[in-house]
Amino acid sequence: MQLSPPYLLFLGDAHDALAAKTAAGIAHWRPEWCLGQLRLPGCATTLGLPDMTVEEAAAQGVRTLVLGVANRGGVISDAWRATILAALAHGMDVASGLHQKIADIPEVAAEAARRGRQLADVRHFTGPLSIGTGAPRSGRRVLAVGTDCSVGKMYTTLALSRELQARGVAAEFRATGQTGIFIAGSGISVDAVVSDFISGTVEHLCPAAAPDHWDVVEGQGSLFHPSYAGVSLGLLHGAQAEALIMCHEPGRSHMRGLPHQPLPDLAECVALNERCARLTAPGARVIGFAFNTSRLDEAEGERVCKATADAFGLPCVDPVRHGVAPLADALK
Amino acid sequence: MQLSPPYLLFLGDAHDALAAKTAAGIAHWRPEWCLGQLRLPGCATTLGLPDMTVEEAAAQGVRTLVLGVANRGGVISDAWRATILAALAHGMDVASGLHQKIADIPEVAAEAARRGRQLADVRHFTGPLSIGTGAPRSGRRVLAVGTDCSVGKMYTTLALSRELQARGVAAEFRATGQTGIFIAGSGISVDAVVSDFISGTVEHLCPAAAPDHWDVVEGQGSLFHPSYAGVSLGLLHGAQAEALIMCHEPGRSHMRGLPHQPLPDLAECVALNERCARLTAPGARVIGFAFNTSRLDEAEGERVCKATADAFGLPCVDPVRHGVAPLADALK
Repeated sequence: MQLSPPYLLFLGDAHDALAAKTAAGIAHWRPEWCLGQLRLPGCATTLGLPDMTVEEAAAQGVRTLVLGVANRGGVISDAWRATILAALAHGMDVASGLHQKIADIPEVAAEAARRGRQLADVRHFTGPLSIGTGAPRSGRRVLAVGTDCSVGKMYTTLALSRELQARGVAAEFRATGQTGIFIAGSGISVDAVVSDFISGTVEHLCPAAAPDHWDVVEGQGSLFHPSYAGVSLGLLHGAQAEALIMCHEPGRSHMRGLPHQPLPDLAECVALNERCARLTAPGARVIGFAFNTSRLDEAEGERVCKATADAFGLPCVDPVRHGVAPLADALK
Repeated sequence: MQLSPPYLLFLGDAHDALAAKTAAGIAHWRPEWCLGQLRLPGCATTLGLPDMTVEEAAAQGVRTLVLGVANRGGVISDAWRATILAALAHGMDVASGLHQKIADIPEVAAEAARRGRQLADVRHFTGPLSIGTGAPRSGRRVLAVGTDCSVGKMYTTLALSRELQARGVAAEFRATGQTGIFIAGSGISVDAVVSDFISGTVEHLCPAAAPDHWDVVEGQGSLFHPSYAGVSLGLLHGAQAEALIMCHEPGRSHMRGLPHQPLPDLAECVALNERCARLTAPGARVIGFAFNTSRLDEAEGERVCKATADAFGLPCVDPVRHGVAPLADALK
C-alpha cells in the first residue's frame, strides 16, 4: 500500500471532531502533505486547512483525495460518491479508511480503471501474503505495546521516529493501522489481514535492514484485550523487536469497549509482553513507558510518570507533554 | 458452514496417502457418512471405500461431493472440474478444503446457482463476523492446546467428545480447521478469519450453553509457533475454556516447518497457556496431556507418558494407544 501525497482531506458531513479524527491525525503529523480540506453541507468541524473544491485542489497539485472520516452506518452516500468520481476525473487517486471498500462500488471502480488511478482501501490489505517464520533478521526494531487499545501507540512511535531522525539516526516509522498508513504514505492494516498471516505480514512490513537502522513499529491492541490479543501477539512475534515501549493511560476503569474487563496490572503486562516477544527476539525488553495523562492535570501527570519510572527503573513520559527524548536515549 | 452428509470422497489424482490425509480423517471418524470414493486416473492411494462414479453415488443418496485432497500447485485442473460439474448436475453440494475457492470458478459458480446447490469452501469463512467480548458465558468448555502444530489436537478432541458422549455426558466437538469441519459437518476455519475477528468467531462457534454441557473445542497452532501464535491466542481467549489439554509430540527436534525454532519447554508451555487463558476464563487450567508417541515403540511411549504424568501430577495418555478415558475423568 503506497499512497501519493499531497492530499486533499475529505471531511464529508462529519458532525464533530471525533468523526474527523483520522483526518486530524494526518493534518497534525503531515501538514506539508495536506493542501486543503473538502467539507460538504452539514459538516460541523474543521481542520483549519483551506477549503477547496476538487478542481481547486487539482490545480494546486493534489494527487490523492483522502477519505479520513467516519460516517454513519458505514455506507458511502451519493453525496460522497460525486466527490470521489470528480477526484478521479481530475486525475487524483482516492484513498479511504472506511470499512466499506470504495473499490467495491462498481461506478467508482470503473471510473478508476478508465482513468488509470489507484483506489486505496487502506483497511484492506491486498498485497501478497506470507507465513511468518520468526527467523532472525538484521536491523534494529522497537515496537509500541500497550495495556489497552487507544492509549497512544501511534503517537508515541511517530514522535519517537521523528526524535531519532532529528538526532541523525536512520529511523523509519512503520504503520500498522489506517491513520498511520495515511501519515507514513504506506503500511499495512494488520487487523484486516487473514489471521494465518499476521506475523508474516509484519515481517514483510519491517524487513531485514542495515545493522544500525531503526524501524519504529506502531503497535495495535493489547495482549490483555479479549477482542484483539491475537493481532497483538502476531504483531509482537512478527516485529521481532529488541525494544518495547509500554503505552498506558492511567486511570482507565476498564478495557476499551468492555465494561466487564479490568485493566491489567502494569508489571504483569510488562512481564507477559517480554516473555512472548522473546520467542522471536531473545533479548527483548521494555525500555520505557509512554503514558497518556491527558485526563490528569499537569502536576498529577508528572507525579504518575515519576512514580512509574521509580518503580521500574525505566523512563516514563507523556509524549505529548514531555516529549520522547528519554525513550530515544534508552534505545542506545 | 453447515455440510450435508452422506459424502462421496473425491481423491482426484492423489499420488500418495499424505495427499489424501483429509479424506482419510473423514473416513476414519465418519465411516457412516462416507458412502464411497472417487478416484481419477493416476490416483495411487485408496481409503478402502467402494469406488463410485458421480451417477452411482447420486443413486445411493450421496448429498455432498467432498474434495478432501491436496493437489499440486493449488490449481483445480480441468479433470477435477468435470467431476465437480457432474456432481452439481446430479443435485449434490460440493465442499472443498483447498485454498483455491471452488466458488471462484465462474463455470462452477454458475452451475451451482442454476441448480440451487451449495458450494462450501470450508477454509474460507463467509458468515457474519463479530468482535469478541470475553464476557462470561454459561456452559463448560475444554480446548486442546499444544507445544506445536500437528501434534494431535483434532484427534484428541474428537476422541474426547466421543468418550464423553459414550458416558452419557452432553458434549459436542467444535471444529476449527478444515478436516474437523468435514467430520463435524459444521465449524469455522479460524486461521482463515480476518485477524480482528478471531476471538469473536470462536465465541460464535461455541456459544453459551446449558450449565452441564461440554463443548470440546479443537485447537490450532501453538502460542510458541512464530507463524501462527496469534491464531492460537485468539482461539484461547474466544474459547473461554475452563479446561485445557496440552498436546505434544515427544522427540520433535524443532517447530513444524521452522528448523531454527526449538520446541518450548513443556512446563513453560503449560504456564503460558494457563496465564493467557485466565484473561477470559479465570479458573482455567491444564487438566491433562495428550501425547502423540507414534514415533516411539510402545514401551518407550508408555514410559514417556508416565514420566510426564508423575512430573505434573496430571493424566498423560497417547489417545491412539491408550484412549482418552483418564482425560474425561479429569473433567469431572
